[in-house]
Parts: sequence; C-alpha cells; structure tokens
Amino acid sequence: MERIDGRQADQLRPVKITRNFIQHAEGSVLIEVGGTKVICTATIEDKVPIWLRGSGQGWITAEYAMLPRATPQRNIREVTKGKPSGRSQEIQRLVGRSLRSVVNLTALGEKTVWIDCDVIQADGGTRTAAITGAFVALADALAVVAKDDQEPLPLYDYLAATSVGIVDNQLLLDLCYQEDSRAAVDMNLVMTGNGQLVEIQATAEGAPFSQQELEVLLSLAGKGISELVAFQTKVLGELAQRIGGVAVAKTRAGFQE
Amino acid sequence: MERIDGRQADQLRPVKITRNFIQHAEGSVLIEVGGTKVICTATIEDKVPIWLRGSGQGWITAEYAMLPRATPQRNIREVTKGKPSGRSQEIQRLVGRSLRSVVNLTALGEKTVWIDCDVIQADGGTRTAAITGAFVALADALAVVAKDDQEPLPLYDYLAATSVGIVDNQLLLDLCYQEDSRAAVDMNLVMTGNGQLVEIQATAEGAPFSQQELEVLLSLAGKGISELVAFQTKVLGELAQRIGGVAVAKTRAGFQE
Amino acid sequence: MERIDGRQADQLRPVKITRNFIQHAEGSVLIEVGGTKVICTATIEDKVPIWLRGSGQGWITAEYAMLPRATPQRNIREVTKGKPSGRSQEIQRLVGRSLRSVVNLTALGEKTVWIDCDVIQADGGTRTAAITGAFVALADALAVVAKDDQEPLPLYDYLAATSVGIVDNQLLLDLCYQEDSRAAVDMNLVMTGNGQLVEIQATAEGAPFSQQELEVLLSLAGKGISELVAFQTKVLGELAQRIGGVAVAKTRAGFQE
Amino acid sequence: MERIDGRQADQLRPVKITRNFIQHAEGSVLIEVGGTKVICTATIEDKVPIWLRGSGQGWITAEYAMLPRATPQRNIREVTKGKPSGRSQEIQRLVGRSLRSVVNLTALGEKTVWIDCDVIQADGGTRTAAITGAFVALADALAVVAKDDQEPLPLYDYLAATSVGIVDNQLLLDLCYQEDSRAAVDMNLVMTGNGQLVEIQATAEGAPFSQQELEVLLSLAGKGISELVAFQTKVLGELAQRIGGVAVAKTRAGFQE
Amino acid sequence: MERIDGRQADQLRPVKITRNFIQHAEGSVLIEVGGTKVICTATIEDKVPIWLRGSGQGWITAEYAMLPRATPQRNIREVTKGKPSGRSQEIQRLVGRSLRSVVNLTALGEKTVWIDCDVIQADGGTRTAAITGAFVALADALAVVAKDDQEPLPLYDYLAATSVGIVDNQLLLDLCYQEDSRAAVDMNLVMTGNGQLVEIQATAEGAPFSQQELEVLLSLAGKGISELVAFQTKVLGELAQRIGGVAVAKTRAGFQE
Amino acid sequence: MERIDGRQADQLRPVKITRNFIQHAEGSVLIEVGGTKVICTATIEDKVPIWLRGSGQGWITAEYAMLPRATPQRNIREVTKGKPSGRSQEIQRLVGRSLRSVVNLTALGEKTVWIDCDVIQADGGTRTAAITGAFVALADALAVVAKDDQEPLPLYDYLAATSVGIVDNQLLLDLCYQEDSRAAVDMNLVMTGNGQLVEIQATAEGAPFSQQELEVLLSLAGKGISELVAFQTKVLGELAQRIGGVAVAKTRAGFQE
Repeated sequence: MERIDGRQADQLRPVKITRNFIQHAEGSVLIEVGGTKVICTATIEDKVPIWLRGSGQGWITAEYAMLPRATPQRNIREVTKGKPSGRSQEIQRLVGRSLRSVVNLTALGEKTVWIDCDVIQADGGTRTAAITGAFVALADALAVVAKDDQEPLPLYDYLAATSVGIVDNQLLLDLCYQEDSRAAVDMNLVMTGNGQLVEIQATAEGAPFSQQELEVLLSLAGKGISELVAFQTKVLGELAQRIGGVAVAKTRAGFQE
Repeated sequence: MERIDGRQADQLRPVKITRNFIQHAEGSVLIEVGGTKVICTATIEDKVPIWLRGSGQGWITAEYAMLPRATPQRNIREVTKGKPSGRSQEIQRLVGRSLRSVVNLTALGEKTVWIDCDVIQADGGTRTAAITGAFVALADALAVVAKDDQEPLPLYDYLAATSVGIVDNQLLLDLCYQEDSRAAVDMNLVMTGNGQLVEIQATAEGAPFSQQELEVLLSLAGKGISELVAFQTKVLGELAQRIGGVAVAKTRAGFQE
Repeated sequence: MERIDGRQADQLRPVKITRNFIQHAEGSVLIEVGGTKVICTATIEDKVPIWLRGSGQGWITAEYAMLPRATPQRNIREVTKGKPSGRSQEIQRLVGRSLRSVVNLTALGEKTVWIDCDVIQADGGTRTAAITGAFVALADALAVVAKDDQEPLPLYDYLAATSVGIVDNQLLLDLCYQEDSRAAVDMNLVMTGNGQLVEIQATAEGAPFSQQELEVLLSLAGKGISELVAFQTKVLGELAQRIGGVAVAKTRAGFQE
Repeated sequence: MERIDGRQADQLRPVKITRNFIQHAEGSVLIEVGGTKVICTATIEDKVPIWLRGSGQGWITAEYAMLPRATPQRNIREVTKGKPSGRSQEIQRLVGRSLRSVVNLTALGEKTVWIDCDVIQADGGTRTAAITGAFVALADALAVVAKDDQEPLPLYDYLAATSVGIVDNQLLLDLCYQEDSRAAVDMNLVMTGNGQLVEIQATAEGAPFSQQELEVLLSLAGKGISELVAFQTKVLGELAQRIGGVAVAKTRAGFQE
Repeated sequence: MERIDGRQADQLRPVKITRNFIQHAEGSVLIEVGGTKVICTATIEDKVPIWLRGSGQGWITAEYAMLPRATPQRNIREVTKGKPSGRSQEIQRLVGRSLRSVVNLTALGEKTVWIDCDVIQADGGTRTAAITGAFVALADALAVVAKDDQEPLPLYDYLAATSVGIVDNQLLLDLCYQEDSRAAVDMNLVMTGNGQLVEIQATAEGAPFSQQELEVLLSLAGKGISELVAFQTKVLGELAQRIGGVAVAKTRAGFQE
Repeated sequence: MERIDGRQADQLRPVKITRNFIQHAEGSVLIEVGGTKVICTATIEDKVPIWLRGSGQGWITAEYAMLPRATPQRNIREVTKGKPSGRSQEIQRLVGRSLRSVVNLTALGEKTVWIDCDVIQADGGTRTAAITGAFVALADALAVVAKDDQEPLPLYDYLAATSVGIVDNQLLLDLCYQEDSRAAVDMNLVMTGNGQLVEIQATAEGAPFSQQELEVLLSLAGKGISELVAFQTKVLGELAQRIGGVAVAKTRAGFQE
C-alpha cells in the first residue's frame, strides 16, 4: 500500500539544512523536512539561571513557536491569548531536555544557550525537525565560543529525532501531516548518534498498541535517525570532527541483567 | 542493593483508594500510593466543546494541580504566576488523553467529563497516581449517569499507570521522590487492563539508555500495572462487572508483520 | 422552628481538627466543621517582605483557594482565569490580618509564616473554618522553630472565628450553606480567646438590620467562638500551655468613656 | 486632646458634592470629604448579567480605582500589574453590594447601573466617600431613565457611609489619612437614611477591641451618617422627594426577641 | 461654512489650565480644551531605569488613561482586559518622547519624571491636550527639585501640541470629537516654543492627501501651537523666565541644502 | 560624505520580493530590503468583526512580530511577557490602517483579510518593509477570492513605504539600523502609487526640525516609494493590471485654497 506522497514505509522525506540562515545569531539553520520548515537559532548568553550560579555548569533552554500561517488554518498568536499553549510548552521542554542530554554542561561553563525554534511552515513532525535542526545550530554556536578552531565542542554525541506511527494498520517512518492526523499511534523518538535512546513519547490516539508493535516502531525510528545523523555530519563539514570526543564522560556503566 | 524504603526492585508502594471522598462530586477518590496523595474528582457536564457539538460524541478533559505544601519546599500557586506551569499542562494533557483511550465516547453521548486531580501530598509518581485514581472516579461518575444499575459503562477496559526508572544502575518499579530525583532514566507508562500500551513517556535525564534496558523497564511496569488494575477491580466491587463489555469496538485488527 | 440540620439556633456544627495532616508542612491540619473541610498548612520562611527587612519583625501572610469540586457546581480554577477572584483575595486578606492580630511579630523575628487554606469540601463558613484551623497549624509551626519545647510561643492569645446571621427572621449561629444562601444578614466574626473582637464583617444582603439585632448576633458568635477556643485548647494538648503568656504586651490601656 | 486638623472627636470633615461633574454620564458627582476627592459616575446599560436575564430584575455593579498620584507616593497603575489589587476588588464589591441594598431591583427592570468611583486625591475614607457620592450619582442616573419627572425613583432609602476608629485610645469619627494610619481599630459603616445598618467592616489592626468600644463607635458613625444623609438630601434638591416612597417593600418583619 | 461649535477654521477652542490641581504631586494641572479635560501630574523619582544607571542622565516617562465615563459610551477599564490598549500605549509613548525632546536630561541628573495623563472628560484632542498640560506640570515639578528659585529649569524650550485635519474638504485647527470622527485626514503636531517640529503623526483615514494640503495643515497647527505656548507662558507666571535659557545646547547645526 | 554601506543619500537598499513563500497562505511573500527580511502573509476569513456585521463591508487587520534572534541581541518573546509591546502594537495598527486606505472595503464584501508580518531578520525599516511586502501578499490573496482571473482587484492603488531621516546633519533615504540608531530625526512615510500621502510619522529623537527640512525629507521619501511601487508592479506581473481600476471612487474632490 502506497503512502500519500509515494514514499516507502521506512523512508524519510527529503531533508535540507541551511546553515547561517539568520546573520545575527551565533548559530542558525533553516531545516526543511518535506513541507515542514523550521528556523532554529542558538544564542549564547554569559550567565546561567539562578539555581546554577556558582556551580560552574551551563544550561540549555529552548523555546518553540509557530507563525500564524504555518498551518492550513491561521492560528491565533499565543501572545494574543497571553500565554503559550500547553502544546508549545510541552515541545519546548522536550527540545531543551533532549539537547541537554548530549551537552557536557561542565565543559560549557556558566553560559546559557537559548535555542529558538520557529516553525514557518508545518507539515507534520515539527518538534522532531526542530530537535534535528537545533543540534546543528547548537554546534555552530558552541564553535563561536570555543577557544580556537581545534578545541573539541562540549558535545558527547550527535542528536536527532523523528516520528513513527501506525496509520491504517501500517507502521510508518516520518509521518507527514495527513498521515499524522489519521494515526492510531504516534511516537516521537530522540536518539543519539550511537543509537541510544534519549526520549520516547508514544501515544495511542486510537486503540492501544502491543509491545511487538512498539519494537517495530523503534526499529523504523532507529533507521531514520541514523540517516539524519549522517546528514548532520555531512552538513557540519569540518566541525563534525569536534563532536563526541568527550562522550565517555556521560556513559553509564550500563545495564547488567 | 536495598531500596530507600526497603522495597524490592519490582515492588509497588502500598496503595489505598477511598471512594466517595468529596460529597458533591459525581465521582471522587483519594488515592494514596506511598506518601503520594491525590484527590481525583469526576464531574459530568451536559455539553461538549464547540468542535464536538452535534457529533453525538462526548469528551474527557483533565486538570491537575498541587497544593502549595504538597512538597517539601512550598510552591508558589500557579494563579499567582497567572498561568499553569508547563509541567502542569503536560500532565493534564496526559491524564485526559490517557483516559479518553478507554472511553467509548459515542456511547457516552454529548457529555463532558471533567477530571480534577489535586495533589495534596507529593512523594513521586503524582501523575501516574492521578491516572490510576481518576479511572475509579470516572467509573463512579459514569455510573451516576447510566440508565440503570445494570447498564454497561462506556469503558472499553481498565486503565492504570506507574513509573519505572534507572537509579544507580538499578531498574526499579514505582519510584518514590528520592529515587526519582536521582534517576538517570525516568519512564511513565499507562496501560490498559489487558496489558496494551496507551502512553510511554521516557526521558534520559542523565545518560541515554539502550533498547535492552527499555525492555526490562516495560516488563517491570507491566507487572506493576497489572497489580494496580487488580486493586481497582477490587475497590470497584460490583461496578467492576460493568467495565469492558464493549472493549472489542476499540480493537484494531492488530499488527501483521 | 427547627434548623435544616436539626440544630438549635445557638449550636455549632460538629468540629474536628486533625493535626499533622500533610507530612511536609511545619504545621498542618484538616479542619472539618459540619460538611466544610479545609486543609490549613503553615510554612516558615526565613525572610520577610522587603518593607520589613531590617525591622526585626516577622510577618504572617495567607492564601485561600477552593478545589474545583469543593462545591455542588464545579468551579473554574482561578489559574484558568489568570487571577484570583475578588472573593478569594478578600478572604485571604482577612485570614492573614486576623492571625497577625494575635502574633507577637517582634518575638517571631524576621520570619514569614505562609498560611495556606485550601477548601476541599464546602458547606458554608469556609473562611471562618480556615481561620480557626489555621490558628492550630500556626501554633504547630511556631513550635517547630522555637528554641526548645518550653519556650512560650509568640502568640498573645487564641483566635477563632464563626459566622452568624438572620435567616427567615431567626438569628442563628454557624450557618451551613443552605442557611447562608437564604440569609438576609450574614456576619463573620473573629475573636480572641479572651472574648475581644478582632474582625466584624456584617452584610445586609436583604433588608438592613438594627443595632438591637447586631447585639444578639454578637452574643451568639461569642458563645460559638468560646466553644471553638475550648476545642482548640484541647486539640493542642501540651502546646496549649505555651500560648498567651505574653499577651499583656498587646493590650491597649483600654477605652475610658 | 485635639485632632490633627482641629476637629472634635465626633465631627465630620467639610463635605462638598458637585453634581453633573462629567457631561457624558447619566449621573456624575465630584465628592470632596476633606482632602479626599472622588469622581463617581453612574451609567445605565440596557441589559443585565447572564444570570438575571429574563428575571425582570436589574443589577448594580461598581468599580473603584485611584489615579497614580492620588496618594503622597505615586502608585503603580493596576493595569501595569495586569490585575486589580485585592484592596480595589474588596472596595468595589463593598460599593456595589451596599448600593444594591437600597435599590428596588424589580422596579429598576432589566437594566444594569455601572458605578465608577475614581479617586483623584486621597486623604483617608475613600471607600466611604465613594459610597456617599455614588448614591447621589445613582439617583441622578435613575431620574434620567424614569418615565417622567414625578415618578418615584426605585430607591428604598438614602445610603451613606463613614469611617470611625480608635486612635491613641480616642474614639473618633471620619478618620483622615494620618489618623487612619495610626488607628488601632478601624471601622467602616454603611447605613440607610433611617439609621439601619447595611455593612460593618471592623478591623483591629493593633490590639482587639471590646463590645463596649464597639457600641461607642457605632454611635459616632450613626451621628456622622445622619449628617451625610441630610447633606445628600439638600444637594439633591427636588429629586429628594422621589426617594424612599417605596421603602416599606424592603422591610423585614424585624427581630422579635 | 461654519464649524459645529461656531469657530473659525483656524480657531482654537477655549483653553484653561489650573495649576496645583492635585495636592500630593510635585506638579499637577487640570487642562481643559473645550470639552476635553485631562489631569496631568508630574512625579519626581530619585532613580532612573536600569539602562541609564551611572550615566548621569535623567529620564521622562509617561502614562495615559481614560476614566470609563470620559466618553459618551462607557469604556471597559484597561485593567479589566489585563493590559493597556494599543491606542493608550501609542499615546503614552508619544507623550513621553515629545517631552523628552525639550528636557536637558543631563542637567536633570539621575532622576525619573513620571508624567500621568488621566482624561476625565473627552471631546477630541486628548493626546495633544495631555502634552500641552503635561509641559506645565513638568515645569512645576522641576521647580520643586531645583536648587533655588532662581536656577534655570532643565528645559530647552516650551512644548505644546494640537490637532488639525480635513473635514468635509475643509482644513481645520483643533478638531472636536464630532469633527475628528468625520475627518478624512487627521494630524497631530507637537512643536517647540520657537516653532520647530518635534512630532508629526498624520493619517489618511479616508482618501490620501497631497503635499499642498500638508503645507496648509502645518501652517494651521503652527498658528494654534504658538497661541498655546503664549497661554502656557502666561499661566506659568514667574516660572516662565526660567525656561529655555539653556536651549542652545540642543540645537543642531541645522540643515544646509 | 559616504553612507555606512556605500549608498548615495537618495538610494534605496537592494529590494527582493519572493511571492508564494509559505504554501498554506492565500498570499505570502518574503520581502528583503538590505538586511531586513520579513515574511508577510495574507489570510482571507469569511467573516468580519462584530461592528461590521451586516454592513456589506470588509476589513483588513494586521499583526506584527519579530523572531527572538531577528536582532543582534536576543529579544524576549512577547508571549513570555504576556502581551505585545507598545512598539509592536503601534506598528500593527500602522500596517492595518495603511493597507485599508487603498482597499475598496465595499467591493471586498464581508470578509476579513488578516495580514501577518513576521520579521525574521532586522536591519532597520522593518515596519516599512512590512507594508511594502504586505501589499503584494494582499494582492495575491485578493486574486484567490476573485470571481475570475480578469476581475479587477478591490484595490484603489498601489501602496508602499520607506523611512527617511537626518543623520549627522545629512538627510538620507531608507535608513539601515546603524543609521537609524544615530538619527536625530526619523520619519516613516506611506504613500500610494500616484504619490499621495497616507501616513507620516516623524519624530525628533534629538533636536527638533524645521519645515524646510521636512520638505526635503518628503521629497526623498517620494523618490524611494515610487521606485518601490515600480518594483511591486514588476513583481506582480499580470496581476498588476488588475490594480487601481477603481481608484477614482476613493478620491476626494481635493483641496481648494
């Protein structure tokens, strides 16, 4: 059974990442995943939230929003309602938390990196595109504050994200909006470059799902994310060699059954 | 290695559910899971949100809050800040979405059920206790609006939730606050009475985790949730027989590899 | 003419105070007055509002809220509206002001006591139950910060409150919700253990009232409050002996006609 | 012992009421009580709040605010903080409730009268000046919507308010700001033209007070309010004769000891 | 063709400025321009906004609001909506910016002057009346903080404002509300005592206008403003001599074609 | 004296307009004026604000915002502050008002056009770029709802905007950010295709300016705007022929001295 845009079940949409998209930001990209387009910027600020002052550690925080006509129907701006929607808050917490999992906050030092993800056109998977794009903007911004152009970046590993789901009893990778809106199960995954899990958010909008289905979905996502990481590596060019050198610091001893 | 409160790795804390805790509500419970205490009420309203008017379908919506001294440090009330925190919004969206997955909204008819979960004392796992308790309050409220005391309730199945996590390289069921605050990985699971998955929210606060670890965590959670469902069944007494009779309606054909 | 719940005109509803109701708070009670149930906690904070810094004096402040289903009809949460209602603000100002009248703020030193009164079930008289219960929570919290278990608490006297009113031309003590909603005149009184007046809030919802009626209402309230103070004394047990030893400090020379 | 402005203990400050102060409003006055100046307007709106639609009854509602430099220190505007202060809400609830007690809401019909009290200069007693002035603006506005210039206004009686208090052990009428800020006890009274009580708000800011003191304070307030009502009568001129003709309708049978 | 109130096309409405209108403020006026009445106060605060601390410079900031019944239809208070309207913000930015253009902020020193303009009755031209009145209040407040009663005030020049417009193809000075609401073109001008331009805000509500029309409108406004400045000078009496002595400091070399 | 970017005093920065930039919107452009980049979308909604219902007329409304890193320093999002800044409100009122001046609202019929201007990169002149770009997006959106591809659009004329100013005593066209921040006088102009004035907003940030200077500034702006209109015409291609056919309807008889 063919997908609405002719893709295979395990095929990502075309991905494009334009670095240095906004001239003023330390790091900035336009990431395009099919019809989804997100501007991600990374801003370095020379202070940390109150609870980290004096700790020697840095912080990563994220904000997420959509332009009113990113969607087929115009959305009312969140500022008009006076507060961010629950959905936006959920997403920005996810983006910040995910990125923090690959940053060596001690090596960063007492700096805050502000990640801004603004969706200018939406076609499903905006939060996962935001994470994948924000990682590249973050790497660029960290390079700006590095001592020199050889110093390893304070990044343990790569980080990318995608969605998978069950639509009409088919298990699919990288849902577009039309697929997503009909999905019985919708799952967002964030993984590191070496295939470890950082976040799983799975929801049965329709009927619940089995553990067997979960395994297949995880495997589809793993394939997509490894392709996204390969793409990030290529886009980052020389900078790619400065990522992950310090990864051992973050490894747990691992699970002994 | 012993847990802080002497439990086994796969052991739930003591659970207590007091039905009819608030006299005015159609359904209400006090659920206690160890030191976590949540008042859950269910209110039936004879109308639905605008987008459902005329659809013949009902709706379940949830709100979640904490009293200021539910926690060791006093929390500022959300009304003082003028808006609910991102955390509260995330939780109330989770509670509402999870409960909707086991409700036959067509059989409910054009009614809204408001679920209110107010944490009066917190010791970890407040969102999962809220879901487990709210299911019982929901069943009681649905009984109030049933035609007679024989009619099956519009509930496909039972629903309960628990947390699991990795603490000091140990995989544990039902984290208390002290365990949760040191967890490298924290996962909340919502499952139905027949062991299907409704929600997975897994987060690597520290180092990422492997798929093998995920499997063990899912199995711990499955054990805990089946015990919670058994407890709900016992607490509901005669009402238990009116749940799940219509479950087939919600079953997908299932996954064919 | 009999009251709706069979009480005499000058009879209080059954009162129950459970100390140490919330494990995390320095002081906490569940007070039940008939069907009205309020959780009162007292939190000690080691700083004072800006205008008192350096004064050597402490401060007592109060917050008041209702759970959504404390009432027969579900209330919209105040956080949803973005601000506390006028009614809530009026009540929390009353609770804080009343408690301050019996606290020796200089003996307290530069500390703030936060009083939180959360109504979990309402049946009239929630603000007066909040004051009566909060006094006990306050005493417990002050004992926690006392130098030793002999030191007099910085409390001049006991404090309790009740309502009186005119319903169907009858003058009644301690109105329940059904009486309150039909009352022509509604009066809340706060008094000290030695029968002095701290607050009077009297409102003619229907026809105005005479000074003669006011006198009878004051006398009914006086009877009720002296019973409440006796009850507080009994509930506080040994702690009762450490209240009021310093009361003389607060006495005005008194009124010379 | 002489008062700060040379008055006797039982003497009001000079009172001035200018009718038709704002040309656009149906009723409007500038009331001056010593240094306190309040603009009171009354606006007639041809609809009622939702809960009164179809009831045949009208409604009176009030709002209260201060200009930033009404006070010695500039106040931050409430709109800057995003919400009215607790104090403002308490006062506007008091003003609306008090005025409603003398209005025949059935005779008014399904109309809302909006009372706006804006303090342009404050020297104590702004809420009581607001009530006394608003009564005159209300009478003027009701005359505008009367069928003809003979028809009795839907007002049971006059309404005026003043403050009394205990300052340095002296019991005083009509406190100015300097007296009020040093008062041990502060009481606001609202009374009708025939001397009945509508509202009592008494607060012991310092030491509590006795019932004997309360009686003297009530008597001082009674004297002041009867003078204010005489002043309102004179200011209203011919309109005065159209007030109170229907007063019997609101009288309770009265209290039988 | 005659104007609605019988004025000539180039004639101002009657102007009245009452100094020291509010006793507590350092400077305060009631300005009346026809039926438009605005209370303007100036408050001196001994600190500056964060971005000016340590700069040695002062600041002027303005706020603007209307009482609810300043207008024929009652306006909802801005605090009720939770934020100032766009119109109010636009006006208060204009008032502050305009006044700053004639203040020697260095001579003022690290002080903030708060200008509050509260419209108590509106009949067109409230923002220009606010500027004209606020200038006088500002001069009075600056005199209060001057070293002695000879010192020149830190004011380069006088400042006044008026409106002009095109109504029914007539070019008119100082529009009243009825004219303003029918105007095809509406222009507010702020000018200094020596006839230089400080602000132009011209809007074609109907058809656009030509440069020739603009010239005539500028000339009408220039006539009106020079009359307003003459009036301010007279009202300020002796203080008038202390304005403008330092004006040279602010003059640009000027425009060389 | 050379400008910072090498331009002549009367030279615009390079302008680029990309039509159909956002796939979901009825009209959308990315306008680039030097380093300033604004996404402008136009959304057609089939209803009008309450005050126009039944009038047969349409409405144009605009919103304006900046991404956080559009500027050298990151801006806090307006939603975080809970309300749009005064600056944003001023700009969106300007954009909406300006566009309305060239739209035949009767020919539009009871529809609202929402204009959204989101600045993704700022380098001075964002509000004038927004107007110039929004006009093109508006024309595209109006074409979508036209009966056929011949029907004249309900646009009287073209509309474009630019800034002019006095910087270091030089009178300059189209200020970039560095010029704007040092300008003594800053003026934004909106003009129609036939050179009529729609809006003038001139502000002396430093010393006031003369009428002679104003004339030169107007002439600079006129030159720039006629170039912008020529550019719009070229970008709109065939659609250009459907603009302005109805322009006579909006012409005033004009000014007779």
